[in-house]
Amino acid sequence: MAKKEKFTSAEWVTFRPEIKVHDCTVRDGGLMNNHKFPDDFVRSVYQACVDAGVDYMEFGYRASKKIYKPEEYGPWKYCDEDDLRRIVGENKTGLKISVMADAERTDYREEIIPKNQSVIDCIRVACYVHQIPTALDMVVDAHEKGYETTVNLMAVSTVPDFELGKALEVIAQSPANVVYIVDSYGSLYAEQIDDLVARFSAAMKGKKEIGIHAHNNQQLAFANTIAAIIKGATRLDATLMGLGRGAGNCHMELLLSFLKNPRYSTRPILKCIQETILPMQKEIDWGYSIPYAITGALNEHPRDAIKLRESDRRDDYVAFFDEMND
Amino acid sequence: MAKKEKFTSAEWVTFRPEIKVHDCTVRDGGLMNNHKFPDDFVRSVYQACVDAGVDYMEFGYRASKKIYKPEEYGPWKYCDEDDLRRIVGENKTGLKISVMADAERTDYREEIIPKNQSVIDCIRVACYVHQIPTALDMVVDAHEKGYETTVNLMAVSTVPDFELGKALEVIAQSPANVVYIVDSYGSLYAEQIDDLVARFSAAMKGKKEIGIHAHNNQQLAFANTIAAIIKGATRLDATLMGLGRGAGNCHMELLLSFLKNPRYSTRPILKCIQETILPMQKEIDWGYSIPYAITGALNEHPRDAIKLRESDRRDDYVAFFDEMND
Repeated sequence: MAKKEKFTSAEWVTFRPEIKVHDCTVRDGGLMNNHKFPDDFVRSVYQACVDAGVDYMEFGYRASKKIYKPEEYGPWKYCDEDDLRRIVGENKTGLKISVMADAERTDYREEIIPKNQSVIDCIRVACYVHQIPTALDMVVDAHEKGYETTVNLMAVSTVPDFELGKALEVIAQSPANVVYIVDSYGSLYAEQIDDLVARFSAAMKGKKEIGIHAHNNQQLAFANTIAAIIKGATRLDATLMGLGRGAGNCHMELLLSFLKNPRYSTRPILKCIQETILPMQKEIDWGYSIPYAITGALNEHPRDAIKLRESDRRDDYVAFFDEMND
Repeated sequence: MAKKEKFTSAEWVTFRPEIKVHDCTVRDGGLMNNHKFPDDFVRSVYQACVDAGVDYMEFGYRASKKIYKPEEYGPWKYCDEDDLRRIVGENKTGLKISVMADAERTDYREEIIPKNQSVIDCIRVACYVHQIPTALDMVVDAHEKGYETTVNLMAVSTVPDFELGKALEVIAQSPANVVYIVDSYGSLYAEQIDDLVARFSAAMKGKKEIGIHAHNNQQLAFANTIAAIIKGATRLDATLMGLGRGAGNCHMELLLSFLKNPRYSTRPILKCIQETILPMQKEIDWGYSIPYAITGALNEHPRDAIKLRESDRRDDYVAFFDEMND
């Protein structure tokens, strides 16, 4: 024990065993193709996460079929138990499974079934700050059904301090296991991450873990994840080759290599990227490009940049810069 | 004055007027095409830097024609005065011009002419730690000829502390204006940058500026440049769209946007990227890719990754990972 403590309290050249890595490749990437990934794709990511020692994998959303018509979306918009089990069976692995439930977009009372009937381990509730009452009702519901729960506070870069303080106060009283800083717009710099992790930690009084979900609009997703680790965050979202909405996320291959925890191996991730993720570049445009840098620097939602990238003006950076600064 | 000081001592939302930005697009990018950029390309980058308020632009090397045969390289390997003047005339602008001189690869006594006959403002001497005696002789020579000078300590991530301490001691005694931390392998994390800026600053005793030249192997070039700024670095290398060797450099468009100094404008940089740099992607493969992440994480020179990317095995990440870890 003395030996273990010596190592765990050491500098960055060692590793912190309490850190957990949460893969979001299929969930965040699904925002770019209406969650229409073929089973082989999802199975390949799942196997890579299992082999690499990743702690959690998020398959998609449990979205309301009243709001999102099933004819427009692939299975990972809903993550029905049958769809999940087709990939993971009973999931007799060390990898835990999560789905995301958006506040106000999930029929959670009916659609989230008791944990003992589900292959899901963790329900992650995503919300904007004004949706916190709903989000916390969802957290209580999922917690009572037997799940691990998280609150993922989206667009945190737009939340005034006063509101953030109140929000964290009520989150602290909820049964959520983890509260996530979500830089939805990819606009935060490391000093802001430092400040947010400190605020979140202080408000949680050591009773919840702090998580970080970063976007790569300004090529800072990995750097901001490291910054959050240094300040004490222990739940880290990442995606294979950064696959995710817009500029994408913190790259899993970079993160695992940085963490230096012998529990993780980078090689299975590289194999999956090479065989499964890289070919997806023909279908999905993700990763750093200047329109995403522009929205990130302006602390704006990436939707206009995504539209531009899908149009025939995709590289008209100057016109987009002028529009966004208008 | 009181008002100015109030602003300059403030947090990151203001700007630090002592910071200077050094464009290296043509010089570092030239490492990928033997410096064979057409005049129009160089002129476009020059005009963008002038219009954007960038402080310095580096056109290339002043390399020895005995070592590097002119039939194999473009003009920016040597930056002859005639070639420079073809682009900049007498350079009646606010932009200063630099060339890089590699220790042991420049006939500096003959080839660096007195400043009053040259359009160059600044000679940047690049060296590995064992070349410091030669580098400092070059610095003295250039200084006596009337130039601003810098020492750019390459591959600093491989220099043991003992050697680094001795190196900084003698650099401190030289007439160099700036000493640069050069993360040639793109292997450093922000905590290491923090430590290096602190060591460099302490050794220079406030008498020289500290510079940072970062590579993007692990998507940390911009983040590490910010980290260096926070610790007190004031000379910042960047390139348009990151164009540079291997994974490239800190992106100019991100850096100027971050700095928030009204002296700088991002728009001319975006225009040049759109019209001039982006089309270059058809000829030069630069920017983040997994082979560069692998060499960066291993603190290795990117040469093997560059070779891989030029071969028909360019995306065989797993085999490359195995080779590099062998």
